[in-house]
Amino acid sequence: MYRTHTCGQLNISNLNQEVILSGWVQKVRNKGGMIWVDLRDRYGITQLVFEDGKTNSNIFEIAKTLGREFVIQATATVIEREAKNNKIPTGEIELFVNELQILNTSEVPPFTIEDDTDGGDEIRMKYRYMDLRRNPVKNNLILRHRIGQEVRRYLDDIEFMEIETPYLIKSTPEGARDFVVPSRMHQGEFYALPQSPQTFKQLLMISGYDRYFQIVKCFRDEDLRADRQPEFTQIDCEMAFVEQDDILNTFEGMAKHLFKKVLNYNLPDFIRMPYSEAMEKYGNDKPDLRFDMQINEITELVKGHNFVVFDSVEYIGGICAKNAASYSRKQLDALTKFVQKPQVGAKGLVYVKCNDDGTYKSSVDKFYNQDELAKWAKKFNAEKGDLLLILAGNKNKTLPAISELRLEMARQLNLMDKNKFVPLWVVDFPLLEWDEENNRFHAMHHPFTSPKIEDIPMLDTEPGKVRANAYDMVINGVEIGGGSIRIHNKDMQATMFKHLGFSKEEAEEQFGFLMNAFKYGAPPHGGIALGFDRLVAMFAGTDSIRDVIAFPKNNAGRDVMIDSPSNVATTQLEELGLKIDIQK
Amino acid sequence: MYRTHTCGQLNISNLNQEVILSGWVQKVRNKGGMIWVDLRDRYGITQLVFEDGKTNSNIFEIAKTLGREFVIQATATVIEREAKNNKIPTGEIELFVNELQILNTSEVPPFTIEDDTDGGDEIRMKYRYMDLRRNPVKNNLILRHRIGQEVRRYLDDIEFMEIETPYLIKSTPEGARDFVVPSRMHQGEFYALPQSPQTFKQLLMISGYDRYFQIVKCFRDEDLRADRQPEFTQIDCEMAFVEQDDILNTFEGMAKHLFKKVLNYNLPDFIRMPYSEAMEKYGNDKPDLRFDMQINEITELVKGHNFVVFDSVEYIGGICAKNAASYSRKQLDALTKFVQKPQVGAKGLVYVKCNDDGTYKSSVDKFYNQDELAKWAKKFNAEKGDLLLILAGNKNKTLPAISELRLEMARQLNLMDKNKFVPLWVVDFPLLEWDEENNRFHAMHHPFTSPKIEDIPMLDTEPGKVRANAYDMVINGVEIGGGSIRIHNKDMQATMFKHLGFSKEEAEEQFGFLMNAFKYGAPPHGGIALGFDRLVAMFAGTDSIRDVIAFPKNNAGRDVMIDSPSNVATTQLEELGLKIDIQK
Repeated sequence: MYRTHTCGQLNISNLNQEVILSGWVQKVRNKGGMIWVDLRDRYGITQLVFEDGKTNSNIFEIAKTLGREFVIQATATVIEREAKNNKIPTGEIELFVNELQILNTSEVPPFTIEDDTDGGDEIRMKYRYMDLRRNPVKNNLILRHRIGQEVRRYLDDIEFMEIETPYLIKSTPEGARDFVVPSRMHQGEFYALPQSPQTFKQLLMISGYDRYFQIVKCFRDEDLRADRQPEFTQIDCEMAFVEQDDILNTFEGMAKHLFKKVLNYNLPDFIRMPYSEAMEKYGNDKPDLRFDMQINEITELVKGHNFVVFDSVEYIGGICAKNAASYSRKQLDALTKFVQKPQVGAKGLVYVKCNDDGTYKSSVDKFYNQDELAKWAKKFNAEKGDLLLILAGNKNKTLPAISELRLEMARQLNLMDKNKFVPLWVVDFPLLEWDEENNRFHAMHHPFTSPKIEDIPMLDTEPGKVRANAYDMVINGVEIGGGSIRIHNKDMQATMFKHLGFSKEEAEEQFGFLMNAFKYGAPPHGGIALGFDRLVAMFAGTDSIRDVIAFPKNNAGRDVMIDSPSNVATTQLEELGLKIDIQK
Repeated sequence: MYRTHTCGQLNISNLNQEVILSGWVQKVRNKGGMIWVDLRDRYGITQLVFEDGKTNSNIFEIAKTLGREFVIQATATVIEREAKNNKIPTGEIELFVNELQILNTSEVPPFTIEDDTDGGDEIRMKYRYMDLRRNPVKNNLILRHRIGQEVRRYLDDIEFMEIETPYLIKSTPEGARDFVVPSRMHQGEFYALPQSPQTFKQLLMISGYDRYFQIVKCFRDEDLRADRQPEFTQIDCEMAFVEQDDILNTFEGMAKHLFKKVLNYNLPDFIRMPYSEAMEKYGNDKPDLRFDMQINEITELVKGHNFVVFDSVEYIGGICAKNAASYSRKQLDALTKFVQKPQVGAKGLVYVKCNDDGTYKSSVDKFYNQDELAKWAKKFNAEKGDLLLILAGNKNKTLPAISELRLEMARQLNLMDKNKFVPLWVVDFPLLEWDEENNRFHAMHHPFTSPKIEDIPMLDTEPGKVRANAYDMVINGVEIGGGSIRIHNKDMQATMFKHLGFSKEEAEEQFGFLMNAFKYGAPPHGGIALGFDRLVAMFAGTDSIRDVIAFPKNNAGRDVMIDSPSNVATTQLEELGLKIDIQK
């Protein structure tokens, strides 16, 4: 037997017991006559003690040779510590070692196995198996496991069935790029790895499995932006005989269940906000509602004062930053630089300080007198000490820029409470999105999303204004997932394909089997897909999904630990009927 | 709201309630003045009734138009049935329909949606989404879901963590053929899809996650034998700081938990049988122990009687079929034909009938008198009425042939009770297997399996006799899974690679990162992988894993429903730096 207890288990109630522990040497303190060893496993740390003269001399000699990350087994007696450590559950005891075995040695690790390691990102990824020993990473994976189990318990309890859909499927040119898998048995043909189980889950609804879910890997061969992974995990769900509210209520319930069970946090009821309102008030379809700071439009109020910047633009609006009137010239200049960054894209920034004495100080004092500025302040519900920050330009560019400024101010004013979670549903997304590159509309969500019945007449006249039965779950400004009520009628689906610019042949070629399935009794249905990596990252309080994936790939899609992708044997390519043909 | 209840929910306690149901039209019986409709969903069937004169006439007209698999919604009153059906939970009531809506029509399905369908395998696979509506398939998927949930509950309760390992990994030439995935960002390089997460789970042990599991898809590009799938699902597990018994006890416990929770069956304690004993007694490393019929060797007993067939061979042995002495000439001839089939490979069959009058009738009466046959019977513990069946030849060919005969006799004598489950652990597998094709030993399990310490000296002298710390879980003659205690010492691993004929460079090239990881404190560890598809098939009482997979591929690795694999665009291949180059 390698152990009777784990390294996180023993405490004062085990005094004088003979125990066996196994684990890794976290730290050795050798004071000559005394040696202390911190023994670590997944469950915690327990202190071993060796005393010259008291400990068996052979064992004392072995103890002297122990190095960091050695794997050892100790048979020992639980004794009370003189200097107690109340920071860890085992801190009141230590182990007097009677037998000691080195199960495996270790070379000196290339970085320290500590919460704050000295290892950079690259070396930790190369030796990820050692990085995974560190508490912050371990705790993230425990959280991930916990959340996965609780998702399954919640959905199982309300009669959802987990059904596995295939990984070797068919390539479709729509959307992001597929990873393909050459077939050896059918040379020249390819499978594709799924970007999502979308069509399969719709087929399952047609098959009558009215509550489906799956925690499933998905694949996208994209040029990796920051914090994207070529393989990622989705909580994929679909329901039949439901309306939009049924789905929202079900998954609002799931989110509350997870926060309660995993973080013991009572998530509040979800606000439901139309997309258009989110854009007007927050300039963003995933507003962070932990803080208010809504956008106010002042276009009509400020025009006509010979300030050409305002007079010449479509939209003028901004935010009121509470208690920020004390911002210095330097801070305001930095904010101006911030909004002028290409990612934000504003031309300049207008500010109004609401001074404590009731006066206003503005960058446009020349054009607006105190009375006029007082009107602005009133519009923003600003109080003494507040700071108005105003941008101007085209509406569809300026609102997102104000959103960026809003988030920046929230960071500067510490309004993003890490321990607070404010969820909402953003609903009524536009059905179509104008694709400037290809000069046509494409589906904002995907081509199976149903339009709102009352908006269908606009499909022919103002397609950009048609709203969809589509929704996103947003928490603290992060899009956790989204979904829609699907089209379940083959004529409606054909109409949609037409509006998306598919020819009949293209639609048949790409979605024929789904269209065909619609002929045989498709029920009304809809669903949602949640980003599991993103959800876990939110629970873990980290911004990067890489922190919650055991073996992530780097920004170039490479696993530097196993050195993949890599070359394969020519014979293998011959079997696949393939030749490498790189065109520079 | 589409429904207030499901089609399996209503009974006599709901009498007179106004309800809404949605579902599929299973069957319409139109008797002129009365129409009955069986409405089906995932949960059951409820009868709707329409009566001319009583039912609203518009609704009655709509009811007349209903066809099989139409999707409808009915608002109705629960009434008591005159002719009750006690075969279904809803059989005491029917619904008097007050409102009726056709949610979707259906063309006539290409086969009947019944437990016994008229559809052949091919058409059912092409229209799998309709095949999935049938009870037998649906019940298998429900079972699959249930087993998956219970596996997770059991393992979670004893502190196993589910950790996702990557799907885009690295190709290794060892073992079965990998599916590869060309990289676009690194043209000319490939990922591979995992045949199992073997190396990753070992790395997780090195990382300290001492109890890991995952229900995970695995991939093998093999020529498909019957009932193999290119993608299949594994319950993959690994533990650290354990000995073999710890693993066997843990997963014996899991199997018992599953049988109890899912089938309410008390699985007996697992027998533990060495591989050598399984081969001697059953001719098979996965013996079906629902029945006894052990193999007895009679080589010494029968030699030296001038029967040249016996005198010239290495091994003579057979089985005693209880109460089969009444077998006719014709039946015995058929058995002889059976053992002579190439898959069984025996030359001929010797029988001895133990007659009710105490005499013996044998096919070798010429060479053996009654006294000698009596000795044979005694060796087999045969009683009056029993039939001895004996084969002779090389031991390593004859034992498996007797095993086939044993299974055939069990089928003929109805000894394979579908409702009985007898599990065992087959242990002490050989470490190495002689590979006749390549004229070298290769690892029977895989190259990371540890040899038994006491057998290590034989590695140099008699490598074929070295036993491994390897084990299989076998139930009713089916190998549910297997595993081993791994090597955790880098020197031992290097020795193993040498014996498996890897050069240092090959070992480094293929397993370098794992060998490297062994340098940094690898704990003792071992694990198991269970075939999830196979396990579910056993619970479902089917022989084919295809019956328990929602969207299986056919024997040519093709998904006939979505028509995959298929061609991809030339531009996509160009992006991957590939050219199709089929050599006939």
